[in-house]
This record gives sequence, C-alpha cells and structure tokens, in this order.
Amino acid sequence: MQIVHQIESLRQLIKANRAANPAVRIGFVPTMGFLHRGHASLLEAARKECDVVILSIFVNPLQFGPNEDLERYPRDEERDMAIARETGTDIVFFPQVSEMYPKPTRTMVSVSGVTERLCGASRPGHFDGVATVVTKLLNIVQPDKAYFGMKDAQQVAVIEQMVYDLNIPVTIVPCPIVREEDGLAMSSRNVYLSEEERRQALVLSAALEEAESLLEARKETISPEQLRQTVVRHIQSAPLADIDYVELLSYPDLAPVDFWGSDERIIIAVAVRFGATRLIDNRILHAPVASLSHS
Amino acid sequence: MQIVHQIESLRQLIKANRAANPAVRIGFVPTMGFLHRGHASLLEAARKECDVVILSIFVNPLQFGPNEDLERYPRDEERDMAIARETGTDIVFFPQVSEMYPKPTRTMVSVSGVTERLCGASRPGHFDGVATVVTKLLNIVQPDKAYFGMKDAQQVAVIEQMVYDLNIPVTIVPCPIVREEDGLAMSSRNVYLSEEERRQALVLSAALEEAESLLEARKETISPEQLRQTVVRHIQSAPLADIDYVELLSYPDLAPVDFWGSDERIIIAVAVRFGATRLIDNRILHAPVASLSHS
Repeated sequence: MQIVHQIESLRQLIKANRAANPAVRIGFVPTMGFLHRGHASLLEAARKECDVVILSIFVNPLQFGPNEDLERYPRDEERDMAIARETGTDIVFFPQVSEMYPKPTRTMVSVSGVTERLCGASRPGHFDGVATVVTKLLNIVQPDKAYFGMKDAQQVAVIEQMVYDLNIPVTIVPCPIVREEDGLAMSSRNVYLSEEERRQALVLSAALEEAESLLEARKETISPEQLRQTVVRHIQSAPLADIDYVELLSYPDLAPVDFWGSDERIIIAVAVRFGATRLIDNRILHAPVASLSHS
Repeated sequence: MQIVHQIESLRQLIKANRAANPAVRIGFVPTMGFLHRGHASLLEAARKECDVVILSIFVNPLQFGPNEDLERYPRDEERDMAIARETGTDIVFFPQVSEMYPKPTRTMVSVSGVTERLCGASRPGHFDGVATVVTKLLNIVQPDKAYFGMKDAQQVAVIEQMVYDLNIPVTIVPCPIVREEDGLAMSSRNVYLSEEERRQALVLSAALEEAESLLEARKETISPEQLRQTVVRHIQSAPLADIDYVELLSYPDLAPVDFWGSDERIIIAVAVRFGATRLIDNRILHAPVASLSHS
C-alpha cells in the first residue's frame, strides 16, 4: 500500500498504473478518515470491482460551517491505515489542507434543487463544499468508479446530480448503510456520544424500521404526513433527542411528497442532536401505488 | 475530419484515439462557431502542438443574459467546417442544446474575484455560464491542452482560475488577439456592424495602442487613472461609441490599480456598444516599476 500526500505524486502513480495497463479499472473511495465498517464496506466494494483501489482521507474545511465540528472532527491515522490495509487498498491519498487549497478557492461548484432540504437547509453551504471538493478529488484521481455510503443519501443525490450535469466521466456507486449490531448507523461522529446518548440514539433506526413496517401494513390508509409524524413521535420518546429534521421526500429528487403518487422511491431522512452530536439516518422505501382516495 | 453530434460518440472516438496511442496529445478548441481568423489561429496552435485537434461548436444558452443576442448569434455551419478542414482539425463536436442540457442544469460552477469587474459586472451570470459549459466540455473531451483567445482576456483569467481551483487536468493555452488589417479585433459579432459603425469601431484598437505608447513615453509621470482617461476620451471621439466600461486592472487578478505598484502586468480592457453591437478589446501591458512619488 502506498501513502501519498502530494497531488502530483498521486497523479504520477495513477499515470503509471494506466500506462502499465490501459484497461485498468480505478476505484475511488473519498472519506474524511476516522474509518469505520461503513467505509470498509466501500473499500471492499471497490476491491471487488476494480483493479486499483484508491482511498482519500481529507477533512475538508469547505464543507463545515463556522459553528460546526471541524476542529474537533475525530482523527486516527493509525487505525485508518490498518483498515485500508485490511481491505486491500492500493493507494491512500492523504493531503494536507494546504495541498488541496494552496490559496482560498475562488471557484465553487453548487447544486440546486436536491440541496434545498434536509442537511442542505440545516447546514447552509455544506453541499457547495462537498460538491467542490468531490469535483477536485475526481479531477485529481480520475477514477472509473467512486463509492459513497447511503447514510449520506442526500450527498449521494447531490453528487449524482453533479456528475450528470457536468458530464464527469465516472460511475457513482452508492453502497448500503452499515449498522452496528443494535441498529445504530455507523458514523465517525458516534464516538462523541456518551453512554446514555448512545443508548437513546437507537431510537433513530428503530423509528425508521417502524415506519417501514407501518407503510407495509397500512399503505392504503396512512398518508405521507401521518407516516412522518409517527417517526417524529417515536424519536421524541427519547428524552435526549433534539430533532433537527424528520422529512419524507421523493428519492433521488428530494421533493416533497404530499400524497402517494408517481414517485417510486421515497426517503425518510432524520437528523437528530444528542447533546452536541448531530446524527443522521435514513431509509429508502418503495412508495405505495397511487391511491388518491386515501390521500 | 469527423463530425460528431453526440457526447457518447465523441467519447468513443477519443477513447479509440487514446487506445491506439496512449501518449496521444489531444488539443481542444471550444468555440461558439461563426469562426474567423482568431479561431483559426487557435486551431493552428493546437495543430502544431497536438496529435489530435478537436473543435467544439456550441452556442451555449447558459452564458447569455435574457436581453442578450442568443437568438440572433450568427451561425454559418458550412464556413465553419471549411475553416476546420483548412486548419487540419480532426474532430468537430457539434452538439444540439438538448445534447448538452437534456434537462435544465442544477449544477453551476462559479468563479468569484476575477469575475467581479469588466464583463462580469456588465453581464451578470455570464461567467457562471462560461465556467459551467467549459467544465462540461473539458469533462467530455478530457484534452491535454485547451486553447482560448486573449480577446476574451477575462474569460481566460476565469478559466485559468477555475482549472487551478478545481485541479482540472488540462493546460490552458492563451493565444494572442488576431486583428483585421486595420486593427479591429476579430469577433463573430463584427458582422453585426454597419459600414459606419465598423469604421468608427477602429477607435478601440487605436485608443489601446495610444495608451501603450503613452505609457512607454511618460511612464514616470502618468497615473493609472490618467492613462484610463486618455482611453475614455479617445473612444468618446467616435460619435457612435457608447462606452460600457474602460478599465485598467492588474492581470490576471483583475484587481484595481490605483498606482503603479507591484503588479507586473496590467490590462486595459474596453467594452463599447456601436448601435446594438457590443465589442470588447484589450491590451496587456507591462506596468511601470513602482514610483510612489508620481502616484
């Protein structure tokens, strides 16, 4: 496994790989480090489908708001490298901020529409920062496939929109959410949680699971808003849960769903604070067939 | 010479070229068509330096304002193809609007700083449209070098900034302004001019030339603002000239120059309407060495 810190060294390595085998398939997993089994699943998917697997670790200041957790974002280089090795990663790109932003960027990539709700509303500028750094990384690595976890479902929607609109020559591969045994979605931020917060945070996956069962059992009689409300109530049953949002939208368009209509897939997405820690989770469901009489 | 209308066909052609010769150098000249000797000079530069020369012709709606000349922008496909052939172009990419924008784009690339003055101020949104379509075209063609004319000096500054910020793997090659015998900068829009407007439009190149001579002769005693004013007065001597802007800025930063300081290069850039036709021209000069006593 090679670890490179400079863009130019990475480009040379990739060029050498492409020169050695013009048909080489390069898989790319961009991360902010502090890897968990969710990231490992992305690296494993890339390992299965590609000849060269490249992991990037970069905590991108551009996607953090002024009052967010940039400074305290958790880091563990040693463990990250161990996970990279275990999953058969070939190259780790681990740049400093000064390498990615030698000067403050004057160029921003912005995606509208899919960024207006959910985390786009709660974290202004966040997805501009994500879109811009992912564009930079894709231009540096020029991978055939790039892997993203569905825990950040809106991020996947934003990046797929951007790749489509800008004709970026890459295939985006969304990968399923990986959960702890008890259901909590894997997140680098889970480490912030106190024992009691960690216990109560299970309410997120439980509420989403309940919503799915409810939709299956009562799809003819429950409206989108009623379904959303059951998730809200379920989460509120945890005293430490401070809801940022609970939304039910079409996926991947992320538009409001007032009644079960033509959208095949819906997402129920939640962002909830436990103490200072903001967790997100979601479930993508097949919407019931349109049934206007029950809207 | 091959003419392709579909993105996918173009990608296949380029892929075949790269497969046949992994060291192939691809040169790209993006244009809006109605080619003149200025465009021909870009194609010739690409021909000299590259193995495969690709010309794109696309009148990009995204970079035109609501009251601009999108509808009447001049077109002459036959002559364009003749010029492409004469200059040894290998591939012409000539997409429809529906091919480049199958749906309205939700993703925009924006460059700040260098877009705040000159045409960026006169044409709000123009450079977002340019940056976005150039990003798309660079992603489709993936050239080694891309050629742009210095008549649109601000466009060159915007694209160089964008390529730097987004790590786009391409070398931007700025090419000198090509002029008619009498000094008028080549432009597709010159065709709009009446005979009298055409005659008076010579004031632009004449005023810029005068400014250069003046700077050389009096560089110790003339301030940037005095120099700018001589250009304004010279242009105002043409009765049909309606000045949009005359600015003297640092290049390529495009920041105000209040006194001759550390900027090595300055640009004097003008945009002037003759009737309904808006023409631009510029000259990049070496600024005098700092001489604070004469500011």
